[in-house]
Amino acid sequence: MYNKITEKDVAALRAIVGESDVLVGEEISPDYAHDELGGIEKMPEALVRVYSTEQISEVMKLAYERCIPVTVRGSGTGLVGAAVAVEGGILMETTKMNKILELDRNNLTVTVQPGVLLMELAAFAEENDFLYPPDPGEKSATIGGNISTNAGGMRAVKYGVTRDYVRALTVVMPNGEILELGAKVAKNSSGYSLKDLVIGSEGTLCIITEAVLKLVPLPKVSVSLLVPFKDMKSAIEAVPEIIRSKVTPTAIEYMSRDTILFSESYLGKKFPDTKNDAYILLTFDGNTDEQVEADMNTVANLCLEIGAIDAYIVDTEERKKSVWSARGAFLEAIKASTSEMDECDVVVPKDMIAEFIKFTHALSDEMGVRIPSFGHAGDGNLHIYICRDDLDDATWKQKLEVCFDRMYKKAEELGGLVSGEHGIGYAKKDYLKKQYGETPIALMQGIKRVFDTKNILNPGKVCF
Amino acid sequence: MYNKITEKDVAALRAIVGESDVLVGEEISPDYAHDELGGIEKMPEALVRVYSTEQISEVMKLAYERCIPVTVRGSGTGLVGAAVAVEGGILMETTKMNKILELDRNNLTVTVQPGVLLMELAAFAEENDFLYPPDPGEKSATIGGNISTNAGGMRAVKYGVTRDYVRALTVVMPNGEILELGAKVAKNSSGYSLKDLVIGSEGTLCIITEAVLKLVPLPKVSVSLLVPFKDMKSAIEAVPEIIRSKVTPTAIEYMSRDTILFSESYLGKKFPDTKNDAYILLTFDGNTDEQVEADMNTVANLCLEIGAIDAYIVDTEERKKSVWSARGAFLEAIKASTSEMDECDVVVPKDMIAEFIKFTHALSDEMGVRIPSFGHAGDGNLHIYICRDDLDDATWKQKLEVCFDRMYKKAEELGGLVSGEHGIGYAKKDYLKKQYGETPIALMQGIKRVFDTKNILNPGKVCF
Repeated sequence: MYNKITEKDVAALRAIVGESDVLVGEEISPDYAHDELGGIEKMPEALVRVYSTEQISEVMKLAYERCIPVTVRGSGTGLVGAAVAVEGGILMETTKMNKILELDRNNLTVTVQPGVLLMELAAFAEENDFLYPPDPGEKSATIGGNISTNAGGMRAVKYGVTRDYVRALTVVMPNGEILELGAKVAKNSSGYSLKDLVIGSEGTLCIITEAVLKLVPLPKVSVSLLVPFKDMKSAIEAVPEIIRSKVTPTAIEYMSRDTILFSESYLGKKFPDTKNDAYILLTFDGNTDEQVEADMNTVANLCLEIGAIDAYIVDTEERKKSVWSARGAFLEAIKASTSEMDECDVVVPKDMIAEFIKFTHALSDEMGVRIPSFGHAGDGNLHIYICRDDLDDATWKQKLEVCFDRMYKKAEELGGLVSGEHGIGYAKKDYLKKQYGETPIALMQGIKRVFDTKNILNPGKVCF
Repeated sequence: MYNKITEKDVAALRAIVGESDVLVGEEISPDYAHDELGGIEKMPEALVRVYSTEQISEVMKLAYERCIPVTVRGSGTGLVGAAVAVEGGILMETTKMNKILELDRNNLTVTVQPGVLLMELAAFAEENDFLYPPDPGEKSATIGGNISTNAGGMRAVKYGVTRDYVRALTVVMPNGEILELGAKVAKNSSGYSLKDLVIGSEGTLCIITEAVLKLVPLPKVSVSLLVPFKDMKSAIEAVPEIIRSKVTPTAIEYMSRDTILFSESYLGKKFPDTKNDAYILLTFDGNTDEQVEADMNTVANLCLEIGAIDAYIVDTEERKKSVWSARGAFLEAIKASTSEMDECDVVVPKDMIAEFIKFTHALSDEMGVRIPSFGHAGDGNLHIYICRDDLDDATWKQKLEVCFDRMYKKAEELGGLVSGEHGIGYAKKDYLKKQYGETPIALMQGIKRVFDTKNILNPGKVCF
């Protein structure tokens, strides 16, 4: 169906991007065969590093003409195999397109290339007294990847997700045509929102080569609050109460002692308190000390009333760093604690989180596998890890399958969905199909065919 | 291509929804031939009033089987002919589906039928101490219509547009199949966002029969500020300064004296100040008097520094009502001032508004037609009306066409788009095509074909 890359193709690709930016065969590091999680592996035939929209357009014209599959990759921090070239062909790396092109102070937008890292964008915004609100845990992901998965992150409780901050995209279509979707405007009812279709489409419809993102003024004050509870249930059940109190925290994260201990040992750094079973970590931001303190006090008092053991204000830079770096290291810490793992990032209605976590605890006991988790309690999105530890290959595969089947089924029963922010990629296709059923998947496949008539762009992902 | 509705079809429709809810021929009021603006007229063959998702599904099965076009209509408050049955067939009215089905205080959502009016939803939310933030001027529009056009409204500056508040939709496909898109969750990366594709699709892809909408806690305090300026330019140029001050007003509306005078005479009510040429009207909301006053003072002082003539606090209920009811009546007032009119609701980058309004003033002078306008200065969305007054038919048509061509071209030059919130419908199709060019329109047409293989749902709209 697809053509293999020939020496002539390699020469043509080198003529587009330059000699040293087309790698083939053993020149390609094995790291390019997988993403952060590593469960899905395939070496591309050629690794092509691109520097501009025009180069991407030229590469796509060639790939389209020759019917060669193209998979786009940013930093490779994904967890569902979306950036793995499962059909071989070209792996197109966008990390060299890492320029911040414009800061528009009148329209509160920043225009970036797709290879800009989230941490670079966050720092740039702050230096200029703005905030780019989406704050996924993986700061070294590219913004192109964030848009392609509609990444959410910690601050979704107050600020929403990546989708809410994308004003316009420049994209290259599978045949090389360059299009602008959306505009630097705050409202848009001008036909079907192709831009919103591309957001979260995991590189299967077109290639994002530039993005206009909305910024907000940087809040002047930001304080965190760490609240220990006697158990998971009390901690999680505080969340709807907090939300009903009319204070809107920026973030509400749930942390279990287990996970904090992994993180302590991984980072070699002490967490302020590890005496209790369960914690929620909140952030409040605003423009005056008075307002932020009032919000924080409302929530602290409410938590104490409904059974919190204490409420620690985290206001020095040092304490903030220690608490949030522990939170930031959870994924790495769990990964370091086991031989292999796989993940599930279901999202459920906020008031179903406690039930879902209880379910995973019972499942862990029943199956005899460790299932540590942490979660965005404020937005119903959980990250759950199934750890292989010392299981043999066959047992691991069998248990993993049962755990996944049961967890995705449970999430569906609770009114949730397969993925809150990591996407579907290659790894979660079957669960998406199972949940959505025939027609929504057929609609997605139909849309894919409309954009990508030859099915050359990241084939085998999401809905196929 | 389409079949005409037969007596047998009418009987079948009556068997689905009941005798009295299927009207044909002269039983149908001529009002159903057009929307609020009236420029596009066509009587449907049958008017069918539906009461449930299941009835809609049954009607669509019949229409699909028989290849009869179906156009969905809420309150008929649209301005671009989207709810006019231009191909005849069935006009499906959803106003009887006007129940608020659930208020979920834990997840901060409200579930509604599509025929609930915006004003009913707004009142219900407030009674329960919540806010449904989208606030389009037309309060008697249905929420189904708001979702179908991705309506924006006054509060978009701070809170965003309708899209940002839709968590999930129940829809009926052209063949009668019932689907759920999205879920009652805050994050979603589970495949292409079909929900976001349907939002703003003006009833061309499927029929919205239920919506789960996000609410926010009702801010405890809300105050408006009316700021007169010597001219339009000074007024509009204050807006980016305000935005840069880090205060985020809820709304920033631009009003010219002309428009205020129309409104005064239309309502028979005095506006607090009409001595000056140009005004901006702002709202600030929050949870404490101190915070809201501080925000308001920051902006009032800033405006006075950069040349405002005064800054009136509008804090009593009576004053608020007088100011905002004048603002709310602009469309009706302009309509009452002329024999016929057509409208343009382009959206441009916020810092291009002054230039666009100046352009329309010059165009008005050049063409010898009145072009009053008002606008959402805080979000770049303008509502511009071309008034026929006493022009003869041929002159009116010719001048209207020239004005539209020039305005849409200018908006595009300034980085804007055809519609900020009213949609494309039937009236603006050519301008959409002109701006987007072949490929985006072909993508939209392809998507339409994927959803609606027989092209029976609101045919002839948006991209066809």
